[in-house]
Amino acid sequence: MAAEPVDLAAKLALFTEHWSPKAVAALNDYEVKVVKIRGDFVWHTHGDTDELFLVLAGELTIQLRDGDVVLRPGQLYVVPRGVEHCPRADEEVHAVLIEPQGVVNTGDAGGPLTATVERI
Amino acid sequence: MAAEPVDLAAKLALFTEHWSPKAVAALNDYEVKVVKIRGDFVWHTHGDTDELFLVLAGELTIQLRDGDVVLRPGQLYVVPRGVEHCPRADEEVHAVLIEPQGVVNTGDAGGPLTATVERI
Repeated sequence: MAAEPVDLAAKLALFTEHWSPKAVAALNDYEVKVVKIRGDFVWHTHGDTDELFLVLAGELTIQLRDGDVVLRPGQLYVVPRGVEHCPRADEEVHAVLIEPQGVVNTGDAGGPLTATVERI
Repeated sequence: MAAEPVDLAAKLALFTEHWSPKAVAALNDYEVKVVKIRGDFVWHTHGDTDELFLVLAGELTIQLRDGDVVLRPGQLYVVPRGVEHCPRADEEVHAVLIEPQGVVNTGDAGGPLTATVERI
């Protein structure tokens, strides 16, 4: 019985909520997550790790204190550890996040958008 | 001056050779690489790390000893550490590889397909 690939669009079709990343694969001690993004997140920092965003659909703005990075489908950006950032999307974005397991989505900011990551 | 995203298709347009991954971003001590694949690779194993394949274009078969995994665009598969595998593609595939920096593409097999990874 051969293994099955992870289909990112199929995983994204399993949920509707925004700002709640779902794990779809593990790479050593890293997690590959999919997330739906719409609206404004909170400014926050991950002091211990870089964070990779890869956009699959839509247009994602990652606000940084010295300017915005705009990501369209097929584009990625790695937010360096310790760099304050705030994702934002006017229309729904589908994205992949890759970072070590256990990273909290709101980083040092906490608050009501803090999500528990489930595996789907 | 804001940072720029990494455009995967633009990076893939910078080279033509097959089986020679190019680094396009770093995520902590991991590398994000793009690669063009065509034909048969060599059977090999990475004893120390998992290896993530994400297909952007084309159809990639990852041969495993207990069956094939077939990846189409938007699909990923993580080859677990220690699992012998051999990628194959009848037509050119564009893919992303993610694994720790310094992983050799031919793993324990070595040979003429062993590539040095440059950053593009």
